[in-house]
Amino acid sequence: MRGQSEALTAPLEIEDYGVQPMDDASPPKWHLAHTSWFFETFLLRPFLEGYEPYHPAYEHLFNSYYNGVGRPFPRPRRGHLSRPTVAEVMEYRRYVDEAMLRLLDATFTAELPEEARSEVIRRTTLGLHHEQQHQELLITDLKYNFGHNPLAPVYSAPVSGLTAAPDAEDGGLDFTSYAGGLVEIGVDPQAEAHAFHFDNESPAHPVYIAPYSLANRVVTCAEYLAFMADGGYRTPSLWLSDGWAWVNEAGIEAPLYWTRREDEWWEYRLAGAAPVDDRLPVTHVSAYEADAFARWAGYRLPTEAEWEAAATAAPVTGNFADSGRFHPAMAGTKDSPQQLFGDVWEWTASAYGPYPGYTAPVGTIGEYNGKFMANQLVLKGGSCATPADHIRPSYRNFFYPPDRWQFTGIRLAKDDH
Amino acid sequence: MRGQSEALTAPLEIEDYGVQPMDDASPPKWHLAHTSWFFETFLLRPFLEGYEPYHPAYEHLFNSYYNGVGRPFPRPRRGHLSRPTVAEVMEYRRYVDEAMLRLLDATFTAELPEEARSEVIRRTTLGLHHEQQHQELLITDLKYNFGHNPLAPVYSAPVSGLTAAPDAEDGGLDFTSYAGGLVEIGVDPQAEAHAFHFDNESPAHPVYIAPYSLANRVVTCAEYLAFMADGGYRTPSLWLSDGWAWVNEAGIEAPLYWTRREDEWWEYRLAGAAPVDDRLPVTHVSAYEADAFARWAGYRLPTEAEWEAAATAAPVTGNFADSGRFHPAMAGTKDSPQQLFGDVWEWTASAYGPYPGYTAPVGTIGEYNGKFMANQLVLKGGSCATPADHIRPSYRNFFYPPDRWQFTGIRLAKDDH
Amino acid sequence: MRGQSEALTAPLEIEDYGVQPMDDASPPKWHLAHTSWFFETFLLRPFLEGYEPYHPAYEHLFNSYYNGVGRPFPRPRRGHLSRPTVAEVMEYRRYVDEAMLRLLDATFTAELPEEARSEVIRRTTLGLHHEQQHQELLITDLKYNFGHNPLAPVYSAPVSGLTAAPDAEDGGLDFTSYAGGLVEIGVDPQAEAHAFHFDNESPAHPVYIAPYSLANRVVTCAEYLAFMADGGYRTPSLWLSDGWAWVNEAGIEAPLYWTRREDEWWEYRLAGAAPVDDRLPVTHVSAYEADAFARWAGYRLPTEAEWEAAATAAPVTGNFADSGRFHPAMAGTKDSPQQLFGDVWEWTASAYGPYPGYTAPVGTIGEYNGKFMANQLVLKGGSCATPADHIRPSYRNFFYPPDRWQFTGIRLAKDDH
Amino acid sequence: MRGQSEALTAPLEIEDYGVQPMDDASPPKWHLAHTSWFFETFLLRPFLEGYEPYHPAYEHLFNSYYNGVGRPFPRPRRGHLSRPTVAEVMEYRRYVDEAMLRLLDATFTAELPEEARSEVIRRTTLGLHHEQQHQELLITDLKYNFGHNPLAPVYSAPVSGLTAAPDAEDGGLDFTSYAGGLVEIGVDPQAEAHAFHFDNESPAHPVYIAPYSLANRVVTCAEYLAFMADGGYRTPSLWLSDGWAWVNEAGIEAPLYWTRREDEWWEYRLAGAAPVDDRLPVTHVSAYEADAFARWAGYRLPTEAEWEAAATAAPVTGNFADSGRFHPAMAGTKDSPQQLFGDVWEWTASAYGPYPGYTAPVGTIGEYNGKFMANQLVLKGGSCATPADHIRPSYRNFFYPPDRWQFTGIRLAKDDH
Repeated sequence: MRGQSEALTAPLEIEDYGVQPMDDASPPKWHLAHTSWFFETFLLRPFLEGYEPYHPAYEHLFNSYYNGVGRPFPRPRRGHLSRPTVAEVMEYRRYVDEAMLRLLDATFTAELPEEARSEVIRRTTLGLHHEQQHQELLITDLKYNFGHNPLAPVYSAPVSGLTAAPDAEDGGLDFTSYAGGLVEIGVDPQAEAHAFHFDNESPAHPVYIAPYSLANRVVTCAEYLAFMADGGYRTPSLWLSDGWAWVNEAGIEAPLYWTRREDEWWEYRLAGAAPVDDRLPVTHVSAYEADAFARWAGYRLPTEAEWEAAATAAPVTGNFADSGRFHPAMAGTKDSPQQLFGDVWEWTASAYGPYPGYTAPVGTIGEYNGKFMANQLVLKGGSCATPADHIRPSYRNFFYPPDRWQFTGIRLAKDDH
Repeated sequence: MRGQSEALTAPLEIEDYGVQPMDDASPPKWHLAHTSWFFETFLLRPFLEGYEPYHPAYEHLFNSYYNGVGRPFPRPRRGHLSRPTVAEVMEYRRYVDEAMLRLLDATFTAELPEEARSEVIRRTTLGLHHEQQHQELLITDLKYNFGHNPLAPVYSAPVSGLTAAPDAEDGGLDFTSYAGGLVEIGVDPQAEAHAFHFDNESPAHPVYIAPYSLANRVVTCAEYLAFMADGGYRTPSLWLSDGWAWVNEAGIEAPLYWTRREDEWWEYRLAGAAPVDDRLPVTHVSAYEADAFARWAGYRLPTEAEWEAAATAAPVTGNFADSGRFHPAMAGTKDSPQQLFGDVWEWTASAYGPYPGYTAPVGTIGEYNGKFMANQLVLKGGSCATPADHIRPSYRNFFYPPDRWQFTGIRLAKDDH
Repeated sequence: MRGQSEALTAPLEIEDYGVQPMDDASPPKWHLAHTSWFFETFLLRPFLEGYEPYHPAYEHLFNSYYNGVGRPFPRPRRGHLSRPTVAEVMEYRRYVDEAMLRLLDATFTAELPEEARSEVIRRTTLGLHHEQQHQELLITDLKYNFGHNPLAPVYSAPVSGLTAAPDAEDGGLDFTSYAGGLVEIGVDPQAEAHAFHFDNESPAHPVYIAPYSLANRVVTCAEYLAFMADGGYRTPSLWLSDGWAWVNEAGIEAPLYWTRREDEWWEYRLAGAAPVDDRLPVTHVSAYEADAFARWAGYRLPTEAEWEAAATAAPVTGNFADSGRFHPAMAGTKDSPQQLFGDVWEWTASAYGPYPGYTAPVGTIGEYNGKFMANQLVLKGGSCATPADHIRPSYRNFFYPPDRWQFTGIRLAKDDH
Repeated sequence: MRGQSEALTAPLEIEDYGVQPMDDASPPKWHLAHTSWFFETFLLRPFLEGYEPYHPAYEHLFNSYYNGVGRPFPRPRRGHLSRPTVAEVMEYRRYVDEAMLRLLDATFTAELPEEARSEVIRRTTLGLHHEQQHQELLITDLKYNFGHNPLAPVYSAPVSGLTAAPDAEDGGLDFTSYAGGLVEIGVDPQAEAHAFHFDNESPAHPVYIAPYSLANRVVTCAEYLAFMADGGYRTPSLWLSDGWAWVNEAGIEAPLYWTRREDEWWEYRLAGAAPVDDRLPVTHVSAYEADAFARWAGYRLPTEAEWEAAATAAPVTGNFADSGRFHPAMAGTKDSPQQLFGDVWEWTASAYGPYPGYTAPVGTIGEYNGKFMANQLVLKGGSCATPADHIRPSYRNFFYPPDRWQFTGIRLAKDDH
């Protein structure tokens, strides 16, 4: 599973590993080092007898935000570190991997005390899921870099699904109704002992929701272009107050990566620049844009509970990073909800907060999720940059409303009366 | 009811009317003019035949944020307007009041068409509640001005309740349990046709909550000083990530208006500067501070539903603006929940969002509440600066997590198992 | 001479005294208090036996920038002080004036030791010239306030000279040649013992200058409009690099106080808003604009030495604050240099630095001029807001290149070959 | 001469070529490309028949600030360009070099018209001197990158001169007197037809200077440490007003690259981190620090004319980039002025402005120097990162007062009476 990180960086030139084009996007090299740092800090140092840290400065350099492990190196300056080199980071990864093998060996051969063994297994699992999160970020951060370079470099050759088939027909916007009522969302840690989930997904708990409908697919570029053509970005009544301020201050007039070439909108994809394709999902929109679009269309964004209640019944299949497309694909024409998983992260109207009874784990590892429960919104379902085996209905991703460098998109909802 | 605005400014010098010490705090003069602008814009212009606006520039100058009524004058520059003078603003108020009397006369004598009459009554009621909101802001904005002037001017002479009685005993921190379950919160617009409420308080709707307890009083200065003495402001694990960034960037180390004089903490009150009084409620804390304090104390903040479910049964009495104290007072020693209303606005853990089925009113007046439903938290219960007849259990105030120039405070909650 | 400060504020409403519309512009009330603080701090405290400072907080509140007298109150917050009131500041002025009379009495009746007497006289003279500087700032700061208020308040009724006479003819742009060579500029403190000058004007010293010419009048609005019509603000090759950045970042497209009304440019004057008058001098331009205009016109700005060498021979007469116009007036049609004094401060190409052999006076009073000798340019000649008896050829005013809220203008120069 | 650019980058890893740790410091890769762009833009495109630009996007990407050649790529984002790769940039350099050889061949074989030939020679010479300037910047920008990396990478192995010999004695601070009077500085373009100089060094012109003395060497670390120990950074009366604001806002307490390790100051050098060496020159100080130090020591900074008049008689020898030390070296013990050339750029008190009669060349190439003549100060003499054959007495370098990432230092001056 860790090898996937190296596989994702295989198409890169050495120069691509170090660039940080905005504060939120880390250099690929940093992702590769930080995920190793995680294993070193939370597993090797506390549990592997005689472990020698690879380099004394790495604890500081590759700490992301764990205040319990010293002061992290300032995030906006990650792209200023030409050293360690890529080769040195790869060596660091090998060093950590070998030590992890020794630690796991000790775990399974029961050299470790019982208590430590279960903690090692728990943390190793966490470390691998953590690595998957950074595999997705590595893709989206790289897209930000390439997408802002006037040379528009190609990360990976186009594969099928990057455009709609010439004769494909959009099935139109259809809705599926849900009865609502008292539904249970979240994960019960006891009941599902064998399936991994993050702490923020539990406890399972009942939520009352009124009858509602969800759109059967996410919003397409054609629909979004109609919003734009109707003056969507210049109509204050469509926007939340903070969203309207953002549109005006940041000079927003289209999704991220869209540029106007004469009379046509183009977008940058990891396979290169191309004209916007009407039938593909719109992506790289902020929550403000998603909310304004929904208001313009006469609908609203779903709540997390509405989304999860609907998605729990659906198969976890879709267009994930595993396809190598790294771009959302056209919906099929089926009547039932599609694209719930993969393609684009779907903005919900729900603030990211603790579930009733939530408590963060004790110690530094408790900084993983809980401390971000302010000012962010929940996104559900994963995207075309998410590893297929990383996602599940209860998964809670979270970003600030203006963020849009992830593969974010829009699913419409409405009240049933 | 409008006369209360003038009454509140009676102790002011002319110089005090124009000052805007921070972007969020408007000058008293602006509040007096803007509340009149509200009547002029939403009532006199559309409904009073032959009405001549008082001044052509006022529509622009005293518009707060209604994009449907032209472009508002930039908020941070409200304090740069030495003209109109206070006398001119008072004349504007009289002019609007007189015209409103004519309009109401036409309404009650049925000169207006039926449809217009009910709308006039609806909007007039809204305008008066709007004025009450600005009466509270006038007090808090003035406190910000005076509280940052090295001369520490006195707004009103001390009255009883500004300090705890010498022999008063704090009843200690006690909790009341609530069963939770499926409770209804919010207001049903149909059922309560005669009581005013804002659009954001409806629809009434069921919410499922687990069993919980609320503290019987709000947190005191003594308790907060213990948090500070224990290094609360220097312990990252107590803070939300955004809160920790805020503490460090803004250099926060105590509630607003607290200053250290040698070994003692003093605070500015509208009655002047005084030593912090242990038994009074702590106030002027941000949501980040409230959350960190609760975590340190081993509790948490209540959700809006928990608070409202508990408060619905309680009498709406307390220490309001009407007392003339303008400062929170010591809790009694009763066992039941106290201080739910008045004293301090209580931060909840709930994001300010639309209730299920909420729709903003059509037209410009629909900008009143709905467009602020992003990035803010709900506060409940009113404060010592709130008019007594302005508050109710369903009332939803909202501010950004770092805001603390309102009379904000902390009520602790916990799960019952 | 001090009474002129009160006279200048006579047309103001109380509300006008407290406003600070930008960091560099202080409220009128502050100017009135600060000039009194100067006498209190540098004369009454050290020299008047038994003097009781008027208020313990004023030393902090009304210190402008003298680090030797404690920490000054932050400049950008001067407009946040609604107290002390105007009446209290006026009382402070009276208190200081009376004490100064006692001190001067003691000085002239020789109660003071000889040494102190000459210092008292020296500092009193400095304090009066300091007050004159603030009288000019009071006018320009007030203009900034009024000029940014949509109500465009009138400070003083129009008087003759605010527009050109209908039949007036502009004498055209003519130049006077100067031989240059080794000229002496600055003031010899010994030689002119009886005339006041600031420390930065001395020592007198020789400067070598090549033959040159100066324009016989300052640049008119007609000439500046031609520059604008020719795309002056959009042509990077006309601008210094820092100037071009300033134009683009600040969105500059005309002098300060100019606004476009349909097809015509209007400007705010202290007598109210009026169409730009072709034949009046252009004013409220930054050094960047002056430099770009000169380059466009094929000329350059004069150096301080060129200006002073030419002006030394000229009579110190012109359109000063004493005229009550508070706006530059049209040049006459004479062939010789006009408008050298009054009307507009003339930007020079010379950096504001110490004259050879300059040393700042010892002690806090030495902070008066010397510490500003970085990043600023010299301006010469005074303006329509300068008291007539305040100016002289050697006078060195100084502002940062982007500053333009003073009455600044442009005199062209060229090399003679 | 161009090959020196590649030689300087030889010790680099690929990762080091792309980093831009602050807006003013460009990535090494950018320097390599931009200097080629200069030849392509100003020589190959206009003069080489049939020249095909290497890549259509490079004109935009590698334009530094020439507004006459389209809109430059934003400077602060140069470090965000992972493409073109280093290999591609090197290929670009080869491509341009080959084309330049063809152009020079055409020039010397007289295929070009006479007029073009002299212009090609003139611009080629300019291009080579331009490349030398970027060779120095490449070193200083790289030092900024390495000096802010916690790993403190070594660029080049230490060579002699990086520390003072154990038994070396500092000759103490001695001064040499100069008579001053009417001296000529600058270069007469006619008289010295064969020696290259930049446009800003001419015309030659007389300047009158009073008798003065210059220190025989630049200020040492020992002397600077004494200033620090005496509270130099905490004494406002030593600082220019803008300098004092800078010290406080930027939290300055030592020269750039100095860090405190327990009781000792260390500095980063391109040969690695080392304790500050008392007898070496202090370097990486801003003009504000230089000025404050001089005031503390009882001296002042020299003017450009004073420096140039003294240096014209001195041999242009010293510790330059050619030594491979890349750090200033200890002064000898001779009585005459030393270190005038090489070691550190010496801040003067002179604003960077045009010499009398200066005119910028016509066309885009005229943007080279003239448009920066605002807000900057002149530095003289070159540094240990300057190529030996790049410097001369009339050379005018210029930086903003707070800049200190160049090898800047302090030479003291005083008036003679």
